[in-house]
Amino acid sequence: MSGSFSPSERTRIRRKPGRGSYDEAKVFGILDAGVVCHVGYALDGQAYVTPTAYWRHGRRLFWHGSAASRMLQAQARGMAVCVTVSHVDGFVLARTGLRMSLQYRSVMAFGRTELIDDPAAKRSAMNAFIDRLFPGRSRELRPMREPELAAISLIAMTIEDASAKGREEGPQDIEEDLSFPCWAGAIPIRTTVGRIVPDPRLAANLALPTNLALYAEGARLDDVLTMLQRDYENPGRSE
Amino acid sequence: MSGSFSPSERTRIRRKPGRGSYDEAKVFGILDAGVVCHVGYALDGQAYVTPTAYWRHGRRLFWHGSAASRMLQAQARGMAVCVTVSHVDGFVLARTGLRMSLQYRSVMAFGRTELIDDPAAKRSAMNAFIDRLFPGRSRELRPMREPELAAISLIAMTIEDASAKGREEGPQDIEEDLSFPCWAGAIPIRTTVGRIVPDPRLAANLALPTNLALYAEGARLDDVLTMLQRDYENPGRSE
Repeated sequence: MSGSFSPSERTRIRRKPGRGSYDEAKVFGILDAGVVCHVGYALDGQAYVTPTAYWRHGRRLFWHGSAASRMLQAQARGMAVCVTVSHVDGFVLARTGLRMSLQYRSVMAFGRTELIDDPAAKRSAMNAFIDRLFPGRSRELRPMREPELAAISLIAMTIEDASAKGREEGPQDIEEDLSFPCWAGAIPIRTTVGRIVPDPRLAANLALPTNLALYAEGARLDDVLTMLQRDYENPGRSE
Repeated sequence: MSGSFSPSERTRIRRKPGRGSYDEAKVFGILDAGVVCHVGYALDGQAYVTPTAYWRHGRRLFWHGSAASRMLQAQARGMAVCVTVSHVDGFVLARTGLRMSLQYRSVMAFGRTELIDDPAAKRSAMNAFIDRLFPGRSRELRPMREPELAAISLIAMTIEDASAKGREEGPQDIEEDLSFPCWAGAIPIRTTVGRIVPDPRLAANLALPTNLALYAEGARLDDVLTMLQRDYENPGRSE
């Protein structure tokens, strides 16, 4: 089942509408390929943009941090935020400066924050975050203690409206520029997994868990995160 | 010469102050390693976060886009914004869930926007953007025309205050957790350059320009951008 977000005054794509979409599957696809979002919020007319790790469950986004954080204290009271996720996929080198561009995918998602304060709901959401990234890892860890959970604030935001934008294509020079003697093309950019570094204090008998298998050296992070999110939403398929 | 930004109410790092810095060299180092920032601004109490390409010259940041863009129309009138740049360097897998973390570098920079409307200043700044990424390329391109320049808005922001944050280290488990039988370590994340794709309509006699030499397949994008910014600020050294 795939729905669509309704265009709103906040999300209506006015320029190059062909590059924009309100399609839920497209919005979720871009969200699920990332791990850090940029949360924007306004306090007394001043905007703040905080990068933070997030996860998605249905139409809800979650993030967390120290209960002492100014951002989370403000958001715990409930406020309108804009959560933006972007992926840079390449540079586009056209034959003239104003057609220079980037290949990218991005989502702007709007909603109101709420605090998840119930200890059981908090624990369950934190375990979901761990397992969304590393399937089943929450059960391998030393369990979270109540005072540890109490020291963090967990924020949820139901996406009220959202839009996705993107550009995949290379240079789009106008016809008359094609003969201009200047190199043109694209430089792809990829975010990938490096070689895993065990903790120097790791006991010698602890092998790399199989739930890290997708984090193979050289794998594209967006692919890894996308596959993991599918497994997280359809646990019957993998675990 | 390296200065420092003064901590302000907007940037004061209250939590984990050891992870934060107002040092200009550190702030610039994180800014210079990136190409896409997240610009936050507030309209009627609603925050918006727009990802966009940026460049730095001294304490000024620049970005641009269609003159028809809502964001740029609002910013052209002058408004307080927060520009955030972040780099994800890895996942930290600790032995308990609430010490799970990311390795990252980020900057939040605050200031007021201004429109650069003078055609000569606009052309010069756009050429600087091109040359900051691809040294000398602005002189190889079909020159920008006045109506093309008129169709974009160029925004500048002088950084009034800024803070940098980061985490490099792996798991920081408490002593008593070190013997817990769970794998711990870090998964590095790298953003790298892929294999360059020439425009399919490129004339056969146009070789790859030498000013793309740093964009070698597999090179780390943050390293490439950092080296290019050094050359851009000290043109005597390279061109």
